[in-house]
Amino acid sequence: MTRQPVTAVAVGEALEAFRDTTPLVQCLTNIVVAQWTANLLLAAGAAPAMVDNPHEAGEFARIAGGVLVNLGTPYDDTTDGMRLAAAAAADAGTPWVLDPVAAGGLRWRTDLAIELLGASSPTIVRGNASEILALAGGAGGKGVDATDSPEAAAEVARAVARDNRTVVAVSGPTDHLTDGDRMVLVSNGHEWLTRVTGVGCSLGALMAGFAAAVDDPLLAATAATAMLTVSADHAVLTTRGPGGFATALLDELSLLTPETLAAEVKLG
Amino acid sequence: MTRQPVTAVAVGEALEAFRDTTPLVQCLTNIVVAQWTANLLLAAGAAPAMVDNPHEAGEFARIAGGVLVNLGTPYDDTTDGMRLAAAAAADAGTPWVLDPVAAGGLRWRTDLAIELLGASSPTIVRGNASEILALAGGAGGKGVDATDSPEAAAEVARAVARDNRTVVAVSGPTDHLTDGDRMVLVSNGHEWLTRVTGVGCSLGALMAGFAAAVDDPLLAATAATAMLTVSADHAVLTTRGPGGFATALLDELSLLTPETLAAEVKLG
Amino acid sequence: MTRQPVTAVAVGEALEAFRDTTPLVQCLTNIVVAQWTANLLLAAGAAPAMVDNPHEAGEFARIAGGVLVNLGTPYDDTTDGMRLAAAAAADAGTPWVLDPVAAGGLRWRTDLAIELLGASSPTIVRGNASEILALAGGAGGKGVDATDSPEAAAEVARAVARDNRTVVAVSGPTDHLTDGDRMVLVSNGHEWLTRVTGVGCSLGALMAGFAAAVDDPLLAATAATAMLTVSADHAVLTTRGPGGFATALLDELSLLTPETLAAEVKLG
Repeated sequence: MTRQPVTAVAVGEALEAFRDTTPLVQCLTNIVVAQWTANLLLAAGAAPAMVDNPHEAGEFARIAGGVLVNLGTPYDDTTDGMRLAAAAAADAGTPWVLDPVAAGGLRWRTDLAIELLGASSPTIVRGNASEILALAGGAGGKGVDATDSPEAAAEVARAVARDNRTVVAVSGPTDHLTDGDRMVLVSNGHEWLTRVTGVGCSLGALMAGFAAAVDDPLLAATAATAMLTVSADHAVLTTRGPGGFATALLDELSLLTPETLAAEVKLG
Repeated sequence: MTRQPVTAVAVGEALEAFRDTTPLVQCLTNIVVAQWTANLLLAAGAAPAMVDNPHEAGEFARIAGGVLVNLGTPYDDTTDGMRLAAAAAADAGTPWVLDPVAAGGLRWRTDLAIELLGASSPTIVRGNASEILALAGGAGGKGVDATDSPEAAAEVARAVARDNRTVVAVSGPTDHLTDGDRMVLVSNGHEWLTRVTGVGCSLGALMAGFAAAVDDPLLAATAATAMLTVSADHAVLTTRGPGGFATALLDELSLLTPETLAAEVKLG
Repeated sequence: MTRQPVTAVAVGEALEAFRDTTPLVQCLTNIVVAQWTANLLLAAGAAPAMVDNPHEAGEFARIAGGVLVNLGTPYDDTTDGMRLAAAAAADAGTPWVLDPVAAGGLRWRTDLAIELLGASSPTIVRGNASEILALAGGAGGKGVDATDSPEAAAEVARAVARDNRTVVAVSGPTDHLTDGDRMVLVSNGHEWLTRVTGVGCSLGALMAGFAAAVDDPLLAATAATAMLTVSADHAVLTTRGPGGFATALLDELSLLTPETLAAEVKLG
């Protein structure tokens, strides 16, 4: 296991590797953010493939570079696809990301999230503080927004990461990422990221792309977070509301260089 | 039942209440407009939650501030969710909005719309003239566009509202809204609203949000209509086509103040 | 069968017919691009209707002007709808377009694509080179991106068109379109078209719209391709990345005149 510190230089190099790889990212995600997620991956430099039906999801997880399983709008049909994709990814060694959207607030999907976490060993788990607390068996929020602070969840995240041999990324004004040992903080970004639907969901997809491009999952999760939030820092400069900001965010993701990323990421 | 006249001042105050509440709006809507609807709610100041599977839809309707049931792309799986959410909302006293997309033109969903209207007493029914006529048993349009004028449907809308103890909102160049007694006209807006998919659908979601924030459903429906169409009046000023207009509409929704809304809404 | 050469003048006249018709286009498409496809059709001047459930899909295909069947995210439920819509379209004489997304790379949908091609005689088949090769029984790509060149696929496309009495459109830097006899090349467009998800998918929907407006399916497919790629030539002039480009593309589609289209299309 790679145990090197996650540095700004390493984050920049991760983006270089990501762009060189054009990672093929399979997304089993929700009907709300599927388009946004595909466009964000394309803008960043990855190749999205939204293969989520149970006839094909497992087959594709064996050839994808990385896989995202996002529980935003689960249905009986697609949750079968998720189980098969997660199991195939784990079996084939494809890195995969679990995003337990609204876990803690809704029982059916909380059970599914806990099942997937236990059965198929995700490479990275990404969520807000409430969702991560729910995976640890704690109380959760009512909906999809964090009602617990990332700081409060950071130590729980470390325990979840250690117990499940995974990386846990907790989104918030400051993002907290840990592999159970190392803890990385990223403090770029802007409040408008919470005014565009699916930003967190697409971050999970971006993490799957970076996990296909670099070996260290904590570096992958950090680089994805840094790329999205540094691009947001740029996008907010030229826009006046969440509509224009979302459009500009895609442009900035496509224009961001490894050098700028390394220079502007605020790690802690 | 509140029977006060719906005034521009009341519409402005409704937006203030909406922003203070940050209403949690559950949307059971279609695959075409789910992203747009979530983004529009976020831009306006609400918190969207697209919980539409039958395992969770009823449970969530009990804790949501308002619920939207939109028949745009119904499936066997999600129509079960709609029935459960509507019934739970009615039981729990959660205001809910029925949008019978393309009712009259397609038999299966017309039957479903009539079933939901009869079984679960929606707080507000929103549609174009053809769809409202179809709910009253009249002939409908072929597709999702109105082929009957709102004016022709206004008296039918009043009867549907009275018979079902609901508010009926008929979209068109001039919007007609009635609780069976009062009739409100809103004449803001622009033709480009018909060149962006899902504007009507998102208006239903916005109505569910306002219904969570104010007591009078007719005021809620009117304030949502006013907020969307006044924002459109602004968005059209800086754009040259439907793409830029849609983006600017989100920005304008986020920037609109209660004062501007009260000053610019054209009520009749 | 119309056998006239496809000229720039005819392409311009096709757009005029398209705008006069406001074709009603039924789309059975994927969850990723449904919104984009509807917005693109609205911007271009058509009326989209996303009717894709098996209870209604066949009924609607009899009254639609054109039908798109796109295999991007097929599910058991919606593939039943696709079979019924394709069969009803063939029976009623409604032109329909088959877009075999990722055929060749995934077995289940490849079988479905070949089944639909054989059973219901699509008017137009649109895909990238790998997908068209897969329909002909050749090897395909791993995912949704073309890994074979359009030039290599052109002669295969001609054979597929002839054998199935259809028009085959192969997307690429230069688009190749053939009815088995005539071969048309369109060389407008920009690399950024591949950085926005669903551009190819929406092109299939646009072809269904043009097929509703003009008699010659090869002219319909060419005019749709020309309209999209000439609009892209314009959109790229004012934008700096894929986000702004996608928004501007919708604006340019709405502003494009038949005269400009005829003047700027590069046919070969």
